[in-house]
Amino acid sequence: MKVNGKHYRSLWWDDAEGALQIIDQRWLPHDFRVQAVRTMQDYADAIVQMRVRGAPLIGATAAYGMALAMAEDPSDANMDAAWSHLDQTRPTAINLRWALNRCQAALRPLAEADRAAAALRLAHEIADEDVEINRRIGENGLAIIREIAARKPAGEPVRLLTHCNAGWLATVDWGTATSPMYQAFDAGIPLHVWVDETRPRNQGAMTAWELGSHGIPHKYIVDNAGGHLMQHGLVDMVIVGTDRTTRRGDVCNKIGTYLKALAARDNGVPFYVALPSPTIDWTVDDGVAEIPIEERSDFEVTHVQGRTTGRDIDTVQVAPEGTAGGNPAFDVTPNRLVTGLITERGVCEASSEGLAAMFPDMARLG
Amino acid sequence: MKVNGKHYRSLWWDDAEGALQIIDQRWLPHDFRVQAVRTMQDYADAIVQMRVRGAPLIGATAAYGMALAMAEDPSDANMDAAWSHLDQTRPTAINLRWALNRCQAALRPLAEADRAAAALRLAHEIADEDVEINRRIGENGLAIIREIAARKPAGEPVRLLTHCNAGWLATVDWGTATSPMYQAFDAGIPLHVWVDETRPRNQGAMTAWELGSHGIPHKYIVDNAGGHLMQHGLVDMVIVGTDRTTRRGDVCNKIGTYLKALAARDNGVPFYVALPSPTIDWTVDDGVAEIPIEERSDFEVTHVQGRTTGRDIDTVQVAPEGTAGGNPAFDVTPNRLVTGLITERGVCEASSEGLAAMFPDMARLG
Repeated sequence: MKVNGKHYRSLWWDDAEGALQIIDQRWLPHDFRVQAVRTMQDYADAIVQMRVRGAPLIGATAAYGMALAMAEDPSDANMDAAWSHLDQTRPTAINLRWALNRCQAALRPLAEADRAAAALRLAHEIADEDVEINRRIGENGLAIIREIAARKPAGEPVRLLTHCNAGWLATVDWGTATSPMYQAFDAGIPLHVWVDETRPRNQGAMTAWELGSHGIPHKYIVDNAGGHLMQHGLVDMVIVGTDRTTRRGDVCNKIGTYLKALAARDNGVPFYVALPSPTIDWTVDDGVAEIPIEERSDFEVTHVQGRTTGRDIDTVQVAPEGTAGGNPAFDVTPNRLVTGLITERGVCEASSEGLAAMFPDMARLG
Repeated sequence: MKVNGKHYRSLWWDDAEGALQIIDQRWLPHDFRVQAVRTMQDYADAIVQMRVRGAPLIGATAAYGMALAMAEDPSDANMDAAWSHLDQTRPTAINLRWALNRCQAALRPLAEADRAAAALRLAHEIADEDVEINRRIGENGLAIIREIAARKPAGEPVRLLTHCNAGWLATVDWGTATSPMYQAFDAGIPLHVWVDETRPRNQGAMTAWELGSHGIPHKYIVDNAGGHLMQHGLVDMVIVGTDRTTRRGDVCNKIGTYLKALAARDNGVPFYVALPSPTIDWTVDDGVAEIPIEERSDFEVTHVQGRTTGRDIDTVQVAPEGTAGGNPAFDVTPNRLVTGLITERGVCEASSEGLAAMFPDMARLG
């Protein structure tokens, strides 16, 4: 999406340089820095150091890493070495291994002389596929926003609320939950977005940066504020992303999503979840009972990172010395609280039936 | 309550020094500093600079300020000057003016020679009354915790969750929402308290400091976490304080309280509100419709204060430069979500009937 009036993806191939360009996200939301990725070590660093983040973006980055390896040495041995090197960068990132396996399967049968060009084409293809999935999610979400806009007095903005960063920075472009926002804004629908800061990691700051850079009016709020805003009619629709959706439509997303879903139901506000179909886990039914929730470091809760008055990036300790923190990273929103799932194929009910009807080719019911 | 094994109030009179002692709360939760308040300017500074905070504590401090004024010069003119000087320190603090008016009414009829001693006795009385009200709230809340403890397997702690700081630091002792916790802990009931950090001002850090100093097991969590904890049976009871309770039992408290009440109801967790009867506003019925909510500075949302790695107190900017924030300071929890109100007289239903039956001498129904 746009930054300072120019369109960017979160990574792009620079033909003149013969190198991948990424946005070094460690400096966001305070500084926008673009970096060329030129060596295998650069690729590994980019993923390990979280210069790139978000499952789809990591997958695409790895595919370009494989393309570099094939340009350097298209042998089977080097392909295997590159696979291992890149695979170790983020051991739990499912898209990473998925992308590497897809590259390996496509390249292995080819003659060595053809591998470099084919690997680069494949990396472009993987990146473009992600953009296309997210664009379609946006189109399908746009239809819902249009309906809401049509019911509002002329000129009054559609007020959306989102939690965490399911934005273009975590994908190649558009994002998931943000895609309908960008499409609605670009279509001229007046919008206002409430951005939850999303403690403990404050991913809302990335969302605020994205929206601000594209020109979408928004306000940054604490995670505590959404219920009050909904009570007072200041939210027309909630849109969030998801890390994992069960086959009956329970939604595992960033901690605190469930509280917003409860407030939405209590106030008759539609609560939508935007997701690409690969995040549906057809092996899980009851999200609350079956999905183990990662418990992360206390430090994220007791400390907060930001830019100091001296303009360095530093961490301040908020809780008293020695305080123990609890830090569940995700929660599960039961399907009964979800108005609909916005997918690349269309919008469906958050239920076994809804998902099975939308994805008959993928569904495994029970 | 206790700090390093010794019992403290948030203020106390030191006979030997002939001066009031306060805890300079600006340094909490990182440093525990006691300060003597000796001059009228010291008193004004203590309130203006928020070395003391919380309505009951501010009221008691002002009463001691009036006692100092009467010791210095017991004339009517000086009484009026002290009233004005202290009243201007926090113009919107209702307890401040209430305490000053009470002092003035009691002292005016007395001979000048008797005023200094009477003013000091009255300040002690105002402080002691606050302690007694909170102690009774604690006793009444303790009965509920005892019942929960009796239903739990032996040795398993009663798990409480609280939001904000309705603690002894905001009162003279015990606090309101914390009073049942201290009483249960002192009675030997195993407890575990989940402490919401309570963005944007992180008053949970004060609660964590209080509980830690008294020895009560607790964990500091982000405001997003409570719903997940309740879904997994890890919360037996929520207790919060309130800034204002309507005559039908709607509860206006720190922003985010409403979200916890929704999660409590969704998971069958009892949700109690602890309050001294003076916080009941008998002129208001429907809290959501009638109570105007203070909108505070963006800065509180976009920035976070804490101790830097260099161990100074500083603020870090979390949101991108120029981001607009929304910052409603309170929300209203409708009475339908409140299991009961814990008052100094007993526990009553959060309803017009419940409150009128408990406070027939105060109630004005419509």
